[in-house]
Amino acid sequence: MTMNHSGGRRRPPTIHDVAREAGVSRGTVSRVLNGGHYVSPSAQEAVNAAIRKTGYVVNRHARSLITGRSDSIGFLLTEPQERLFEDPNFNVLLRGCTQALAAHDIPLLLMVAGTEDERRRIARYITAGHVDGVLLVSSHSGDPVAERLRKAGVPLVACGKPIGLGSKVSYVAADDRDGARDMVRHLLSLGRRRIGVVTGPLDTPGGVERLAGYREVLTEAGIEVDERLIVSGDYSRSSGEAGAERLLDRAPDMDAVFVASDLMAQGVLTVLQRSGRRVPEDVAVGGFDDSPAATAASPELTTIRQPWDRISAEMVRVLLAQISGEDPAAVILPTELVKRRST
Amino acid sequence: MTMNHSGGRRRPPTIHDVAREAGVSRGTVSRVLNGGHYVSPSAQEAVNAAIRKTGYVVNRHARSLITGRSDSIGFLLTEPQERLFEDPNFNVLLRGCTQALAAHDIPLLLMVAGTEDERRRIARYITAGHVDGVLLVSSHSGDPVAERLRKAGVPLVACGKPIGLGSKVSYVAADDRDGARDMVRHLLSLGRRRIGVVTGPLDTPGGVERLAGYREVLTEAGIEVDERLIVSGDYSRSSGEAGAERLLDRAPDMDAVFVASDLMAQGVLTVLQRSGRRVPEDVAVGGFDDSPAATAASPELTTIRQPWDRISAEMVRVLLAQISGEDPAAVILPTELVKRRST
Repeated sequence: MTMNHSGGRRRPPTIHDVAREAGVSRGTVSRVLNGGHYVSPSAQEAVNAAIRKTGYVVNRHARSLITGRSDSIGFLLTEPQERLFEDPNFNVLLRGCTQALAAHDIPLLLMVAGTEDERRRIARYITAGHVDGVLLVSSHSGDPVAERLRKAGVPLVACGKPIGLGSKVSYVAADDRDGARDMVRHLLSLGRRRIGVVTGPLDTPGGVERLAGYREVLTEAGIEVDERLIVSGDYSRSSGEAGAERLLDRAPDMDAVFVASDLMAQGVLTVLQRSGRRVPEDVAVGGFDDSPAATAASPELTTIRQPWDRISAEMVRVLLAQISGEDPAAVILPTELVKRRST
Repeated sequence: MTMNHSGGRRRPPTIHDVAREAGVSRGTVSRVLNGGHYVSPSAQEAVNAAIRKTGYVVNRHARSLITGRSDSIGFLLTEPQERLFEDPNFNVLLRGCTQALAAHDIPLLLMVAGTEDERRRIARYITAGHVDGVLLVSSHSGDPVAERLRKAGVPLVACGKPIGLGSKVSYVAADDRDGARDMVRHLLSLGRRRIGVVTGPLDTPGGVERLAGYREVLTEAGIEVDERLIVSGDYSRSSGEAGAERLLDRAPDMDAVFVASDLMAQGVLTVLQRSGRRVPEDVAVGGFDDSPAATAASPELTTIRQPWDRISAEMVRVLLAQISGEDPAAVILPTELVKRRST
């Protein structure tokens, strides 16, 4: 190696060299490297000049030794492992988060904690400092993990609004209610009047908000909401099948159904076809997510697109900001109606 | 809390209490708790008696503060994330490892590193000590991660023999060659003589060994191996489709095909049916794995069962032994022919 840095040294410049060059302490350099909190503008300028002069390159590993950070992020799914593999939304969300973090050279650890024991173990691991923050994908309200991590001061961003934690926890969500409104308006525009709904779990924001949108639009259209047309699922395909069976039993004259996830809508399609109903002629079916399940369905599903790329990018952005000391924030992103063959 | 432990103390007994009771140092107690290396039998006995007398309960978190361990294990998949979601083998293996570790109250972190950048980042995280050991699921030979982790002294157990690393790295594998022999013998027993094969990647043990078993049995049966009947895939469904198309093109008289994974066999079935071949009447199809893909296939696949429960349990056992100071070990487990409707 023949390249020399700053005056004859044959080794790469270190944080000590930067501190010496800038005439500040190593701690000041470290604070500048980590966002510049509690550093005067003049010291910050001196450090930046010294970094340029010495050719110092931030080494994340070295930096983590200085800061005590792990320089890694956890992706925590508080669902049974089977859900991870069944629901293509998780694949899409995980890939988006991995890519957004890759731009920061930060690895993502996937943590699956479907049972209380698993949540206790993983919370212990997280609060011991092995990750700097957590992207939380947890559908159910009152999830004790979110509250436990928040109390332990772990930077945290949820996917979807965590019910009951208000604005204390950062979250990124699609506009569930508005998406549901678009879908039900679309079904009405096709002349359908007996519109059923398979909601998500009613202790989740997606469950509650998508149902609220459904009720609002029907009421606005002067149609009385028939409670027999409302059933709930848990976002799994099998719960979509069970929901469709209950709906057909209670309201055989149903001419459309809004299903709060594409995977559940696959189950609904199976049951409708088994019962001899043609889709969309007899019953129009609208999903939610625009996940790969929507295009894998037969017929392909009209659905509400959740902007997964933006959701994952925003989750990462908000989490990194929080790790740098910013306060929590909520980000709501618009959805979009995607028309395909099922309506 | 009214329960008192060992003489009036209202707090739970600590490692200090155990050391005092046993008349040894805290370090000795710690070594006993961590496997008893470098502890005399008499000291070990005294510590165990003191643990019983004080009612001391091992607290993994406290223990990790003493030992500097993270008390966690990484499950490292050096494949693109898509493969994790496509191939049901990973779901089964991951669940088995999670359960085996749960018995030890140890959380599992899932790490997906399909690109060289991802592997570099995750290796940095692992070698910084954030996990105590790694379960490596990596199909390709010359995988630099295995060698990098081994050199850094990270306890490591691979699923399948890591080509090129010999016995320096622990591994647990099914008997690939023997399984392939069973399948090809089964196809011969059905009177098939033009038996094709879709191998796994030939830089993987499963790829090499299953092909070797195929060649051996045909040769032993006095049938000359026809190289046109041999194609390779990468264990994905689409590579099974591509392989079947090449086989039909090169050997339209093929009357059976041994496919080195159930997922690839699904792709083979699709192409055979599209070409008008009946399975098993015209072409018998045998898979490998007995993964959920075997029973999801139509017709259900005759296959070679890999004992996934035992594989995952043994991987965890060997890894924990290695973390406690034992030398590497290789474990080979027998497979089993499972007959279904595709042959």
